[in-house]
Amino acid sequence: MGKLPEVFGKYNSYIEEELKSLFKHRDLYLYGMMQYQLGWIDSQGNAANNNSGKMLRAVLCLLACESLNGGDFKKALPIAAAIELIHNYSLVHDDIQDDDEFRRHRPTVWKIWGKPQAINAGSALKVLSTLSVLNLKAHKISTEKQVEIFKILNDSCLAMIEGQFLDIDFEDRTDIDVDDYMEMIKKKTSALISGALKIGAVINIDNNRLAPFEKFGMFLGIAFQIKDDILGIWGNDAKTGKPKGNDIRKRKKSLPIIFCLQESGERIRERLANAYRKKRISQRNVNNILAYLDRVKAREFCDEMARKYYRLALNQIKELPISPDKRGNFEEIARFLINRDF
Amino acid sequence: MGKLPEVFGKYNSYIEEELKSLFKHRDLYLYGMMQYQLGWIDSQGNAANNNSGKMLRAVLCLLACESLNGGDFKKALPIAAAIELIHNYSLVHDDIQDDDEFRRHRPTVWKIWGKPQAINAGSALKVLSTLSVLNLKAHKISTEKQVEIFKILNDSCLAMIEGQFLDIDFEDRTDIDVDDYMEMIKKKTSALISGALKIGAVINIDNNRLAPFEKFGMFLGIAFQIKDDILGIWGNDAKTGKPKGNDIRKRKKSLPIIFCLQESGERIRERLANAYRKKRISQRNVNNILAYLDRVKAREFCDEMARKYYRLALNQIKELPISPDKRGNFEEIARFLINRDF
Repeated sequence: MGKLPEVFGKYNSYIEEELKSLFKHRDLYLYGMMQYQLGWIDSQGNAANNNSGKMLRAVLCLLACESLNGGDFKKALPIAAAIELIHNYSLVHDDIQDDDEFRRHRPTVWKIWGKPQAINAGSALKVLSTLSVLNLKAHKISTEKQVEIFKILNDSCLAMIEGQFLDIDFEDRTDIDVDDYMEMIKKKTSALISGALKIGAVINIDNNRLAPFEKFGMFLGIAFQIKDDILGIWGNDAKTGKPKGNDIRKRKKSLPIIFCLQESGERIRERLANAYRKKRISQRNVNNILAYLDRVKAREFCDEMARKYYRLALNQIKELPISPDKRGNFEEIARFLINRDF
Repeated sequence: MGKLPEVFGKYNSYIEEELKSLFKHRDLYLYGMMQYQLGWIDSQGNAANNNSGKMLRAVLCLLACESLNGGDFKKALPIAAAIELIHNYSLVHDDIQDDDEFRRHRPTVWKIWGKPQAINAGSALKVLSTLSVLNLKAHKISTEKQVEIFKILNDSCLAMIEGQFLDIDFEDRTDIDVDDYMEMIKKKTSALISGALKIGAVINIDNNRLAPFEKFGMFLGIAFQIKDDILGIWGNDAKTGKPKGNDIRKRKKSLPIIFCLQESGERIRERLANAYRKKRISQRNVNNILAYLDRVKAREFCDEMARKYYRLALNQIKELPISPDKRGNFEEIARFLINRDF
């Protein structure tokens, strides 16, 4: 449990090499900030080997490409790099928006270089992702396919921004329920995961055959995000490096909180809302909220939801237009994401 | 002097219609923020008819397209809309980065909806611009051309972000000179103007013939930005609606200031730097700095620089691969930009 599936190791160095090639001859320190975000250098510009994240989206992109009738995953490297850059652009901007000071055990980009420059670094990551797509030319991918990929990528990206908009919009509201939350994470988390699978697949198949990948990505993204929400509140301290109730301290409207708002009476709802309005939530507040969550059985509800979408994702794998012997890798990734405890 | 050239009026309603078509069926309030930025609605969502800006870049794009062997400007509308969206995305983010509370006599997007959501609105404008390019398909523009346009647009956009990075980087520095400034505005201002001309032109000619448009855009952008810097300090109050020395109050490192830093001795440089380090610059400080500028004849220097690049732009018009009778419109726009007093 918790061990990264082998396919990550197989693709990882290729993705990193592809990403690094995009930074050649880009000497302005703007690109240093971006490379810091990607984990390759420290804040002084010295080489570092930090956790660049799982690169889940890039891996799914390559896997979708390779699983389709003899697809060569190397052809999809420029778009795997592109999707990873989009993901990182969203992280840089999210950290600014949420005032998050740490990510992957390091200070966030804005924390080091200030918010104005961090906005530039995030935006530049997005532009670089588009330029990466254009490298498909070297792999003899037609301009028709390139244009299809731009469409998918930017539709996904717009959905992702809509999701981030909703997430921030929810912060000041107490009238949101589990349905609203599901709508939000489909956009904020699932859209880019679906997009990653679709662009990998469309290299080898017609774009009217992408629906099963879209659906798989949607279910997987939902399960992934709910699991994240569970860990954000009840995660094992030693593994996540964060104290219990961390997402409460950050006043996140994650699924457990939204379920609690929906299920509780007026009195608890008001108390919860009041605590969330404060600049700092005290440990006592956190403990109280953890107790409210227990009362409505929020943990059980979230576990059940995560399992539900995990099962839907597993079933959806059977619908993918790939040969049955290729299903194992997708199953392994889904299993890893739902079983991880960090 | 100061009257908008006729060609703006000719294209204006087409550009606006094209832009508005991109917002159909987009009901999330994220799109309301974007439409506010474009001047179509007020902050309550009611229809408004505010100044949406000159749409200079979109006009240049259409003009470049139309000036080339019988080019139909309507084919270029999706990309004229795209360039205008990119420009507006940059304005939304710039206002956040510079803490500017007003633009075009209205509160900025972040001032109304907060910085986190304004970041989303800006990013969504950028994504929408890419989706607009894909509408070229309806005008039977080949995917080869679409891919070329993506390359030009994103190269320009990356240069623009680099320019914004440098501009912010300059804020805390006193060791920058006029050469550094020129490098910065070539990226921050000229790159997108060149890009607008190039994508309009590439609809009708091969992309190895774009260099004269690139150069014209570069000179025009430089003249335009220097004129902006002059108006920012010595602009006519009644026309600009801003008091004299406004850019000093905003502690902008515009050309007059950079020239002054370069030309003055250690003592004045130190005083200027000290004033710029303060949170608020007093009227007395502003008056002192205006006197320093007078002493080094900064106004004369900037006027001469603007005229120099205006002349270079006019000469460059003769190099454009268009028939001589088409040059008038370009000349009129250049003349307008250099003679404006607002």
